[in-house]
Parts: sequence; structure tokens; C-alpha cells
Amino acid sequence: MCLILREDFGGLSNRKEEKIMANDKKLVEAITSMEEDFAQWYTDVVKKAELCDYSSVKGCMIIKPAGYAIWEQIQQQLDAAFKKTGVENVYMPMFIPESLLEKEKDHVEGFAPEVAWVTHGGLEPLQERLCVRPTSETLFCDFYRNEVQSYRDLPKVYNQWCSVVRWEKTTRPFLRSREFLWQEGHTVHATAEEAEERTIQMLNVYADFVRDVLAIPVVKGQKTDKEKFAGAEATYTIEALMHDGKALQSGTSHNFGDGFAKAFDIQFTDKDNTLKYCHQTSWGLSTRIIGAVIMVHGDDSGLKLPPKVAPTQIMVVPIQQKKEGVLDKAFELKSRLWDKGFRVKVDDSDKSPGWKFSECEMRGVPFRIEIGPKDIENNKCVFVRRDTREKIEVGLDEVETKAAELLETIQSDMYEAAKKHLETHISDAVTWDAFCDTINNKPGFVRAMWCGDRACEDKIKDELTATSRCMPFEQEQLSENYVCCGKPAKKMVYWGRAY
Amino acid sequence: MCLILREDFGGLSNRKEEKIMANDKKLVEAITSMEEDFAQWYTDVVKKAELCDYSSVKGCMIIKPAGYAIWEQIQQQLDAAFKKTGVENVYMPMFIPESLLEKEKDHVEGFAPEVAWVTHGGLEPLQERLCVRPTSETLFCDFYRNEVQSYRDLPKVYNQWCSVVRWEKTTRPFLRSREFLWQEGHTVHATAEEAEERTIQMLNVYADFVRDVLAIPVVKGQKTDKEKFAGAEATYTIEALMHDGKALQSGTSHNFGDGFAKAFDIQFTDKDNTLKYCHQTSWGLSTRIIGAVIMVHGDDSGLKLPPKVAPTQIMVVPIQQKKEGVLDKAFELKSRLWDKGFRVKVDDSDKSPGWKFSECEMRGVPFRIEIGPKDIENNKCVFVRRDTREKIEVGLDEVETKAAELLETIQSDMYEAAKKHLETHISDAVTWDAFCDTINNKPGFVRAMWCGDRACEDKIKDELTATSRCMPFEQEQLSENYVCCGKPAKKMVYWGRAY
Repeated sequence: MCLILREDFGGLSNRKEEKIMANDKKLVEAITSMEEDFAQWYTDVVKKAELCDYSSVKGCMIIKPAGYAIWEQIQQQLDAAFKKTGVENVYMPMFIPESLLEKEKDHVEGFAPEVAWVTHGGLEPLQERLCVRPTSETLFCDFYRNEVQSYRDLPKVYNQWCSVVRWEKTTRPFLRSREFLWQEGHTVHATAEEAEERTIQMLNVYADFVRDVLAIPVVKGQKTDKEKFAGAEATYTIEALMHDGKALQSGTSHNFGDGFAKAFDIQFTDKDNTLKYCHQTSWGLSTRIIGAVIMVHGDDSGLKLPPKVAPTQIMVVPIQQKKEGVLDKAFELKSRLWDKGFRVKVDDSDKSPGWKFSECEMRGVPFRIEIGPKDIENNKCVFVRRDTREKIEVGLDEVETKAAELLETIQSDMYEAAKKHLETHISDAVTWDAFCDTINNKPGFVRAMWCGDRACEDKIKDELTATSRCMPFEQEQLSENYVCCGKPAKKMVYWGRAY
Repeated sequence: MCLILREDFGGLSNRKEEKIMANDKKLVEAITSMEEDFAQWYTDVVKKAELCDYSSVKGCMIIKPAGYAIWEQIQQQLDAAFKKTGVENVYMPMFIPESLLEKEKDHVEGFAPEVAWVTHGGLEPLQERLCVRPTSETLFCDFYRNEVQSYRDLPKVYNQWCSVVRWEKTTRPFLRSREFLWQEGHTVHATAEEAEERTIQMLNVYADFVRDVLAIPVVKGQKTDKEKFAGAEATYTIEALMHDGKALQSGTSHNFGDGFAKAFDIQFTDKDNTLKYCHQTSWGLSTRIIGAVIMVHGDDSGLKLPPKVAPTQIMVVPIQQKKEGVLDKAFELKSRLWDKGFRVKVDDSDKSPGWKFSECEMRGVPFRIEIGPKDIENNKCVFVRRDTREKIEVGLDEVETKAAELLETIQSDMYEAAKKHLETHISDAVTWDAFCDTINNKPGFVRAMWCGDRACEDKIKDELTATSRCMPFEQEQLSENYVCCGKPAKKMVYWGRAY
């Protein structure tokens, strides 16, 4: 896959080209094959595609321009999808007073062990310590308590884009870090039905976004009590499958019922003139999803970005760019494509074409356009797909239409490939032996019945390091009894090892 | 101005209308006149226009949907202006280890007294305490130290949108709070000239944005040493004048020379193969600017938003909306305007028209369209400008073109009004007595010569609570000697009281 790097580098001689060649070499050497060591491959891609870097602050990452540009695309498109459903954005303080965090019992139990505490402001100790928000349910509740008086004030459907902090012990770029970026939606409703409806609606917004924009198929379902959010009545999740067969929880939506409302005393006067507790939801999706994009689509040449989320969708690479007319033509193509709304760049650096090709591949640009003197003579150029490496000759007068078509094709082919991978990595198990064997030897999801007991879930986690990923909305009765304890089967569960 | 609120409320009888009327009343009563008490007027507008609210976290504000939507407009448009100049966005950790903050002497002296300290992560004390970023020069320097090796790695022009924390003792919504949102750009260059050029370029981006989008004229200039940023070689500023004649620093751009590079050891190999220190800049604009929009344009009826930054540019208010065809026509107008790219809404709530009008005014919607049964009969509607209250009859078939024209007119009229206010609030003083008298009795900027001594600046601050706002780029020699000490005049300075 990386053979392209061994292409002729031509008459490169000065110091820069030497540096570039050294970098090229490093690039090739440094990428671990994904089949050999998937975790190392992941780290290499993150580093080589310049998505993020470690910082001097232990466990916190620096999101570099190439990584942040992906997040900007995600933000823009997801935010637009939110707004279509009536979401309004706000901004809450990043600090939570300890007494506020403690108001909901399950919630504080879940989060207190992993928050960062501010104890001093300026030169003086604080009267009450503040935690840096790990999530903002408590702040929103405190706000809604004052904001909501009557049924006419409901619903409120607010969201914020911000960073949160969880003092994790082991961290990995995008997947788990002490600070990460996300959005957190927090809503408050008059009825339980409306809250449940919003919870599911937002889960579907996530699932549709992840499918249509990120080209990642997911399994939708409900978390077991063991795996649900601290303080939630029900947690729904979208679960994606990475290339190595491990699951990644990719977005969650929680229905709190009136639990938080009772803890925070959020009451409203209903139409019947009686005081009632509100019903609430929250839902979040984080920079973690960039990890999913990398691990679902990437290969041994680096990143593969679905066109809809790629910050650069097309890279024009001039060949023999010093020859008269080549750069002009490259920039002309760029302008034409730019005017049609494509995110397109020209790589007119003095790197070799081979280097440019491999850089496009490493960074996941969906396709590149190669154009040199001979192409211009023949009034054509060459599109090279990142996903299949297919080369397509395109007449210079049909570049815009062919580009639009190709981006659509790549988007849908990438989704189909990911879907096929998901479908071929779902197994069913109806006996304990088969279950253990599949978890241990066949990467992917294992579908098996569950009795509903926490003890069995714990046993599976302890013995097999696998967890219940979700109880899918589409249930099937695979067997009469639970594979673990033999008790009657209550639910079909997707099990798997997970990030 | 608020007479409209005393309009007939018609047949309103149910509980909601009573509540609305009570609110209306409260609305009128609660708005302090700006001439009577400008500070209280400001607080009232912030609260009544629902821009932000106080939180349980002392000194931190909650930015509500109407306020955050303004910030989103600012972000989008300023970010686009940045990107045109080659800026790339990144994200740095929110924590700074104490040892890193201490690396640049002036910088830590300036910021250490007002930072929040994290001392515990989860249940354990940290080995080194971390401050929550008050600004991120130190983190960017630490990053650039590893990132920049050769002149080929330069320049780097990075920016981040984030929140920062400064442990202020007294706070006011948007103007001064313990946490606020901003963008901070941090760049690194090979030469001093290039750094200076970027510093001025970004100041001009701010000035142009504030003028063209926010309709606020500014004075551009350099800060004196006393007023410059902690650690900067030179700080440039845009200073705006509020309605009450006080100045508001609205955006700053700093040239650090190689001071931070030396403190953080950021060196690169230049073309001549020698090691050199980099030159750096930073520049920031914050949610404070929303305070400027309020205080430059607002009046006793509330907010006045320039069309380019108004989240809702046009509100369609149906009159007698229960009559057949009225709501349909209102929504038809909305769709037509929406399709042309205007940010338009229909207020189809069951509030009275009078209430809707005053709400549009309070929230600063640039103009509203009134449409009732008689208008429809006559194939017309009425545009009512927020800035002048002028009513304009518009034929229903020319709504789109007239709306575009009117928004442009409002934008430019608002700028002209603000410019006139600025120009009529600049006075010159050439004697100490005249200087004191003007500062004390005539709100606005006072232009006067300065000897360049810190002692004189201190005296002016102590005796007159006025500060040097900037040394404008366009200098004039108003007098031979400095108004304060009589020493030779070195610079013309804009002085004033400030937020």
C-alpha cells in the first residue's frame, strides 16, 4: 500500500527535499500495519495525519488543525441537525459547586471519583470547592429550577458545545482523555412521554448523522442498568464496530424521568393548576467519534475520510508543476470546483508528486486530481480515489459533474464497506461455550440472550472482559434461556469488547 | 418609547394573558431609563432581553439562547474573516501546569493573582497544581517549541475558540466575569517584521469586523507600557465608545517579539543555517463585545441589533391572527424571505400584538413586518424599523427586495449614528485644568499630549480615574508640552474612563 512512497523522487537535492525524503521514510517506517498491531496503528495514524498530539498536561491532548477541522465539520452539520429539531444553544459555567454536584445521589457517586477540583481562586482558598464540569446536568437543573414555572415555559431544549473534564487514569487520543470536546443537550418537559420521545429523537439524530455523514453504521438500543448513565432512568446508545472488531459507544441519549427534578425541585404549574415535577433528558456526542472515523475507515496508508466530513474533499496535485501552464491549470480547476461548493485545495508545495500522493492518502482526502503537461495536452486529468485507489480519466470540461458524482459514490461505497464489515462481524451464541469461544476468538458483536441479572453481566465482564453493549430495539428470541446462568431469557443483548 | 405597551390588550382573559400582562408591566417598570442610571439600564436590558443570567457559581454567567445566538453570529463571521487570512483552528488543554505558567516572568506576574487552581484530580491531590487557563500563550509556546524546527515550519497561524477563567472580584454580565468565551490567536514567525505585520493585520480584522458587522466605529492605536498585555512588547487595541461616554477595550493584538521564544526556547534553523529565536503574536476578542453592542446601540426600549449580527433579522407579526388567511400569509412571507437567506421568524404566539411589538424591540430585531386582514386586502404590509421606529408600507410583491434594502439601510444608519456619537464625544485638551474639567464633565474621549512617563499616567488614573486608552496610529501635535507635567510632549493619547 505504501509502495507509492518508493517512487522516483527525481532531481531533489536541496536540504528541504532531503528533509522531506527523511520524513517520507519515517512516514513509511512509522506506520505499523493494522493487522500486526491495531493499537499502534491507531496511534501512528493519529500522529502522522497530524490530528492530535500529547501535551505537557498529562492525559490532555492538543487537537491540531487537521483534527480540529474534522471536529468543525462535525459541529456544523450536527448543530444544523439539532436546530432543525428546535434545539437552542446556550453556555453554562464550567464550574460546579460541590454542594450542587451532590444533589442527585447516583449522579455524584458516578462522577465524584473522576472530577478535577478547583480549591483556590487567585491567592485565596475558596469557601466551597468547585469541580470542573464532567457533564452539566446539575448546572442545567439548577438553572431550570428558576426558569421553569408554568407548563407554558415548557419544553426547553437547550444544548451547549464545550469541553468537559474527567480525571481518567489511562488515556488515548480522542478515545479517552482527561479533557475532551463534546456537545451536551439538556431538555426539560412537562410529561414523561414527551421526555421519552425527545430521548429517542436525539438518538436517531445521532444515528442518522453518523450513518449519513460519517458513513458509519450503528446498532441502536438501550443500555442495561449496569451500563447506563449515573442518574438516568434509561440510557440509549449507538454502538459502532471498529475495524478490529471492538465496539465504540458513539453517542448516548438519557431519559432521567423526574429523578433530577425531584432532587433539584424543578416543579411547574400544569394546565390543571397543580404542581408537577418536570421530566428531563440529556444527550451527548464527543470528539471520541473522530476515533471511530479513524478506526472504521482507515487502512495501512492512513486515514480515509468520508467526503461529507472531510475538511479537504479534493486535492489537486500538479505533476511537473514547473512546466508552463501546469500550475495555472491546477488553480483553474481548483477555482471551478471551489465555486461549486467543493472543499478543494491545490498542493503546490515543492514536494515530489509521490510525497504529495502519500500525504493525501495519510490525511484521508477522498480523492486527488492529478494533472500534468500530457494531461493538459489531452484535455483531461486523472481522479484517484482514496478508498479504492481506482484511477479515472476525466475530461477537463466535465470535472465538476464528475467530482460531484465521485464524492457521492465514495461516500456511499465507504458506508457499504463499513456496513458489510459490521454485518460479517455479528455472531449469535446460544450456549455458554459458544459464547465464550466467540467472544475470545471472533472479533465483533456477539448476540446472546440475557436473564436480566446484574450478576451474570458482572461474570461476563470479569471472565471475558466483554460488556453488554446494548439491548437492541429490534429484538429476537435466539434461545429460551440465558447463555450464562440458564435462567429464562429476557432480552437479546449485543455483547462485545469495547473501547 | 414604551407607550406601545399600553395599547389595548383586547379580549385577553385567561391565566396566560394575565401572566403576560403582568410581565409586560414588569417589563416597563423594570427598565430603568438610560439617562437616569446607565449601569442599571444595562443590567435591565441584559436580563429583559434574556441575553444572560447569573448562576449559582459566583461571578460566572449563564449565556441564554438569545445571547448565545449573537455570539454564534460573531463566531461564524469572525472565523470566516480569520480563515481568509490563513488562520487554522486548534484546541489546547484548558489546564496549565504551574511551572509552565511561571516560565515568562512578566506574564506570570500579570496573571497569577487571578487564576483558579486545580489541586485535586479525582480523590487524589495532584503532584503539581494546574491553573485553569486565563489565556494560553504558555501552552502554545510549549507546543511550538516541539513543533517548530526549521524556517520551513514557519509561520504557524493558529487560533482557538474556548472559554478562559480570571478570578475577578467584581463582575458584570459580558463585561467582566470569572469565565468568559473568546477566541485567542497565537502565531509564530521567522522574523520580527512578519510578527509585527500579523499583529497589525489582526487588529485590522477586528476593526473591520466591528465596523462592518457590529456597526461600531473604533479608535485604533497602541497601548502605553502601563496598559499593555503582561509579557508583550507592544499591544494594539481597538477602543469603542459606549453611549454613556465610557470606553470599552474591544479587541487587542499583541506583538511579543522574541520574549516568549527566549523564555520557552523556541528556536528554528534559518535559511542561513543558524539557530534563531522565533517571533510571536497573540490576539483576542471575547463575549465582552456583546456588551459593546448593547451599550453602543441600545435605547430605553432595549436592545438594537445591527442586521448583520442579529440572530433574527425580521419578525413577522400577524395582526388579528385568528382571522382567516392572516397566519397563512404571515408564514408565506416568512418562507419567501427565508428562501432569500434572511433570518426571519413569525411570532404566532397568542400574545397580543402590542406585547409582540415590545418584545421585538426589547430583543433588538432590526425590523418587524406587521400584517393584518386589512393589509392583505390592500395587498401590502408594514415594515417598522427598530432603530428609527419609522413605518413603511410595502407591497406584498416587493417584500424581498424592500427587506434587503431596509436591512442595508438600517445597518449603515446604525453605524452612522454610532460614528456621530463617537465624533461628538472626542474633545481635545491642551492644559491640565481643561483636561481635568473635560474628563470630569464631558463624557467621551479626551485627546491630550503625553510625556511618555508612567508617573503622569498613574497620576491621571489616581486623580481622575481615567486611563490612557491608546496612542492612536494617526498622531497629531495638539500642544508642545504634556498637559500633566509640562514636559515635552511625545505622543498624543486618547484618555477616558473605561469599562
